[in-house]
Amino acid sequence: MGIPKDLFDFKIGTLELGKKNLISDVEGVRVGHFTLDDGNIHTGITAILPHQGNIFREKVVAASYVINGFGKSTGLIQIDELGTIETPIILTNTLSVGTALSGLVKYMLKENEDIGISTGTVNAVVCECNDGYLNDIRGMNVKEEHVKIAIENAIDDFKEGAFGAGTGMSCFEFKGGIGSASRVVNLDNKDYVLGGIVLSNFGSKQDFILNGKKFFTIEEEKLFLLEKGSIIIVLATDIPLNERQLKRISKRASIGLSRTGSFLGNGSGDIVISFTTSNKIKHYEERDIINMNILNENKMDLVFRAVAEVTEESVISSLVHSKTMIGRDGNVRKSLMEFI
Amino acid sequence: MGIPKDLFDFKIGTLELGKKNLISDVEGVRVGHFTLDDGNIHTGITAILPHQGNIFREKVVAASYVINGFGKSTGLIQIDELGTIETPIILTNTLSVGTALSGLVKYMLKENEDIGISTGTVNAVVCECNDGYLNDIRGMNVKEEHVKIAIENAIDDFKEGAFGAGTGMSCFEFKGGIGSASRVVNLDNKDYVLGGIVLSNFGSKQDFILNGKKFFTIEEEKLFLLEKGSIIIVLATDIPLNERQLKRISKRASIGLSRTGSFLGNGSGDIVISFTTSNKIKHYEERDIINMNILNENKMDLVFRAVAEVTEESVISSLVHSKTMIGRDGNVRKSLMEFI
Amino acid sequence: MGIPKDLFDFKIGTLELGKKNLISDVEGVRVGHFTLDDGNIHTGITAILPHQGNIFREKVVAASYVINGFGKSTGLIQIDELGTIETPIILTNTLSVGTALSGLVKYMLKENEDIGISTGTVNAVVCECNDGYLNDIRGMNVKEEHVKIAIENAIDDFKEGAFGAGTGMSCFEFKGGIGSASRVVNLDNKDYVLGGIVLSNFGSKQDFILNGKKFFTIEEEKLFLLEKGSIIIVLATDIPLNERQLKRISKRASIGLSRTGSFLGNGSGDIVISFTTSNKIKHYEERDIINMNILNENKMDLVFRAVAEVTEESVISSLVHSKTMIGRDGNVRKSLMEFI
Amino acid sequence: MGIPKDLFDFKIGTLELGKKNLISDVEGVRVGHFTLDDGNIHTGITAILPHQGNIFREKVVAASYVINGFGKSTGLIQIDELGTIETPIILTNTLSVGTALSGLVKYMLKENEDIGISTGTVNAVVCECNDGYLNDIRGMNVKEEHVKIAIENAIDDFKEGAFGAGTGMSCFEFKGGIGSASRVVNLDNKDYVLGGIVLSNFGSKQDFILNGKKFFTIEEEKLFLLEKGSIIIVLATDIPLNERQLKRISKRASIGLSRTGSFLGNGSGDIVISFTTSNKIKHYEERDIINMNILNENKMDLVFRAVAEVTEESVISSLVHSKTMIGRDGNVRKSLMEFI
Repeated sequence: MGIPKDLFDFKIGTLELGKKNLISDVEGVRVGHFTLDDGNIHTGITAILPHQGNIFREKVVAASYVINGFGKSTGLIQIDELGTIETPIILTNTLSVGTALSGLVKYMLKENEDIGISTGTVNAVVCECNDGYLNDIRGMNVKEEHVKIAIENAIDDFKEGAFGAGTGMSCFEFKGGIGSASRVVNLDNKDYVLGGIVLSNFGSKQDFILNGKKFFTIEEEKLFLLEKGSIIIVLATDIPLNERQLKRISKRASIGLSRTGSFLGNGSGDIVISFTTSNKIKHYEERDIINMNILNENKMDLVFRAVAEVTEESVISSLVHSKTMIGRDGNVRKSLMEFI
Repeated sequence: MGIPKDLFDFKIGTLELGKKNLISDVEGVRVGHFTLDDGNIHTGITAILPHQGNIFREKVVAASYVINGFGKSTGLIQIDELGTIETPIILTNTLSVGTALSGLVKYMLKENEDIGISTGTVNAVVCECNDGYLNDIRGMNVKEEHVKIAIENAIDDFKEGAFGAGTGMSCFEFKGGIGSASRVVNLDNKDYVLGGIVLSNFGSKQDFILNGKKFFTIEEEKLFLLEKGSIIIVLATDIPLNERQLKRISKRASIGLSRTGSFLGNGSGDIVISFTTSNKIKHYEERDIINMNILNENKMDLVFRAVAEVTEESVISSLVHSKTMIGRDGNVRKSLMEFI
Repeated sequence: MGIPKDLFDFKIGTLELGKKNLISDVEGVRVGHFTLDDGNIHTGITAILPHQGNIFREKVVAASYVINGFGKSTGLIQIDELGTIETPIILTNTLSVGTALSGLVKYMLKENEDIGISTGTVNAVVCECNDGYLNDIRGMNVKEEHVKIAIENAIDDFKEGAFGAGTGMSCFEFKGGIGSASRVVNLDNKDYVLGGIVLSNFGSKQDFILNGKKFFTIEEEKLFLLEKGSIIIVLATDIPLNERQLKRISKRASIGLSRTGSFLGNGSGDIVISFTTSNKIKHYEERDIINMNILNENKMDLVFRAVAEVTEESVISSLVHSKTMIGRDGNVRKSLMEFI
Repeated sequence: MGIPKDLFDFKIGTLELGKKNLISDVEGVRVGHFTLDDGNIHTGITAILPHQGNIFREKVVAASYVINGFGKSTGLIQIDELGTIETPIILTNTLSVGTALSGLVKYMLKENEDIGISTGTVNAVVCECNDGYLNDIRGMNVKEEHVKIAIENAIDDFKEGAFGAGTGMSCFEFKGGIGSASRVVNLDNKDYVLGGIVLSNFGSKQDFILNGKKFFTIEEEKLFLLEKGSIIIVLATDIPLNERQLKRISKRASIGLSRTGSFLGNGSGDIVISFTTSNKIKHYEERDIINMNILNENKMDLVFRAVAEVTEESVISSLVHSKTMIGRDGNVRKSLMEFI
């Protein structure tokens, strides 16, 4: 739902909001959580489904962009080479990437009996942030079967805040997690939607900017903390774009990020993945020549604006939806809402 | 000099300013202008000298980063491959790149009789923005010999605003041009400097942000203008960095840019070049193995902050130093100062 | 015409040759030379026209790939960002890039009165090799007007060998220059063509491989010479490809190159540009959403094979078509034909 | 041991061989296998250890290069961003990447109690090829604990051929697997070594080239098979290089590859990772400024030659060391040795 109406006396950007102000405003996109939230364990899985069919058989055209590569995401190399995504996108904690990857591969094998027998393998996309401050990350508590549950939990009207992969995340030293937003873009007299979802886990209190203003005025702010966080940003749209255009829009996520106070810190794995549901590629395509709609390049500015707005709002939304958490070994992250 | 003290009741960022708050705070770095400013002709050359010796014989370690590649800069491919700059960096208008390139090559041939005879050729670096709104750019009024004059004009205490390549530029629909700033970074108990210079020529009025706030409140701001501008950002430092580290810091220029209101528009050629005077590479190196100081990666955050601050301030500085100009065919760009 | 039939008892690769075995087998592609070949001056311009209409108004979809970036080509950054070429591709010597660039810009300004006035600027593509061994390259003898002549000379049935930009080039210490070849690729029961043209100027005698065998058996071959050459490879096709696919095929040029004995030496600026005439982008496109045919990715192998064959044959063709030349200061490059 | 002496009447390249002609000629580099080779299961783990100390605390300077990104390797993004490797490099089959990743993470957690508690996480490097033709890859038979065993098995004098990750691989439709070779490079009157190891799993019979000649003369060779294989190439050296230089040498692996007949096919995940033991980066570095030796760029050609030779020989070596295998469902890959 993005930032709740009436919470602030400002809104982010100037474009029209999507219906739910969520990435699921893009038709067919669903998000599911599996949450572990007990004792020292505060972590989970969030699954983003690009559409409701068989994703391996009907891949979506996609691109990725590495803002800062201090990260352990998998699957990006093949997205870049082939320009497609063929699995749900799984988010989890850094040390559980291997387990989530195996879980996702097993899910895909089950759904597709041809993989590894009569056709090639599968490129599983798993992204991560380090929730070690609130979660016993060394415990590696995510299990392979959790991936399937998260995928099957996927719905239209998913929760933002401390759910799924977002359960144990921190952002600007507040409680962070999952945030989402969307914007409407009109092209050739038709309304399209661009939505985003973030797993927010970066930043120091002293750097946080809300609507252009530093949130805290800290005299001694020269005591810089090392950036050890990360952010995963997934963008979805039904605007017809090709891989090059999707990479260009992915790059613009850094604008929204910068406006929340990020300086794309050394230790922050800042990764963007974007896809369009408008262009699907069949795994068993019979024709040699296929057809694709793309955007007139002169209209890209509109989409860039949408990306900047959606990214900024998604980060803020992840903050306002997260409640104060007492985590591993008593470590605490307060909700931003306690300061508003 | 960056933004004049006392002009605003805020300052950009939290790091200590360099002595002159100019890129030339980095020892050895000089900037020279050649200006054409008459009738319909408002353009020129700005030359940035990485050091005062023979640059071809003592190259500086360097990197480039293309924020948005709608641009015609030359020399970037070789900077990326070899990690060095071996000429002054020349800024001019888009259609004069060829002429400036030839002028720079001729200057280098004269200074180095070995080029093309007993040694290879030379990689000349020329960057550009489109000043066609105020300047008769089709006139191609820059001449080869102007490059040499700009280089020879290079000084410590150069002018910001509408000089040299900055003469006819526009930024956020105000008069733009050359801006510069610097910051001090302390490492191992020693002060280093990071400085930047921009050729600003991008943005729409409605997007301009000053110190976090939109400058204009425009009700009808959905009437988006197409971005047709550009910005060239050159970063210099005496911090020991290698090519990979320089590319990382180059990428952070987009943070400062985003905070002035840029959304890295489709038509904006946003290019960053950075170099360190701390690491020089000899053209006629006799040893097979050479030695280089670099930065402990865990300290990069400090440099990233410096880059973000320097870039944001350089853009604002280019605006506050530029006076209102009546240019080609009566086209006018007002100074931001008329609104403050 | 590629390698003349009956010259060797082998042919390169297994695919069917194009009709003329030239890049101009791709319908609409033309090549023109302007040659300076007298005394110490052996250089020139070669122009490659992607089609016969107004290229600025009807851009071709394109990509570039930098095999080794010790080179000074211009225009590649924008090709990569926007995925289009909007001018003829000009080849010349390294120090004349600036002049050729200005010449090309002036040609484009004359053909398009809107550039710089009512529309933006133009991205001129100029590539180069260093012909300094045979040519007085410091003399910078190429003039701006030569570009226009080369463009106007463009024909179907152009000459290979020491013409245009190829006049003074050397390859494997033989006389090098312009070479071209083409292959037929059948897709959906229709014949398409992929053609290539090279400006060859790299390699040492000891490394030269012809049809898989080292040409010279040199006992003392450990006396390695420094690689100071370069090669420009331009690929054209009428196969429907998008920018990502064009970049993938560009990368495969290195296969053909490797098979001629190149080891992609440090000092060799090895640059590939590729375009398809099948996808054109209008400068003044009125629709927001446009349409494009692309290749089923599972069929890329066929195109990769064509690229490898065309590149290898083009290099050999540049050698067999070049006659022995006595150049600058009596420097000599013998024709490979003297050894066959 | 590379290609056994006296097997052929030719040798690959002209540089001096390393002592063992293995990647372990680079001091400190060790290779360990864990092999599953029974019934339908023919797969395993190969571990490459960059040095004998704590790799997380003393990282090696590294780079990666994606020749063709149809692959699922993990860890490459961070190698590129930070220029270091901090774990052993693990090779396995495609669908076991997740399991191997978790196994490697657990190994690293055990060795380093600070990870995830008082310091950040760890970037685990796992690369893969698809051994599905001979191995029941859907069975996902590799277990987490196998990683530890492979690492602990690491020795100087490891086996080439069908061992570890190489157990079930195919190359040019022969039995493929692990191959290795090395070359000596003299710099400043000192001998350095560059070694390589490959996991070979690509190519069609009709494309195989041995010492420049097609191995089979197939009349009907136009019946092209789809490329579904892959190759992982790891390069190690004690030559002082930085990240940019390591990326440059990584790129040259494609030369050796091309000379064995590869055309870098669409479905082939061709990945190169390279590191130098000469430059180590401390995890807990106390100084802000550190020091590094690098190579005089003018000497790179020698290293490029070494990479081309080592890669070509490693592929051939993987073939000549692999015996005929009857694998999954009776699928057979004959040894190349049966044809020599």
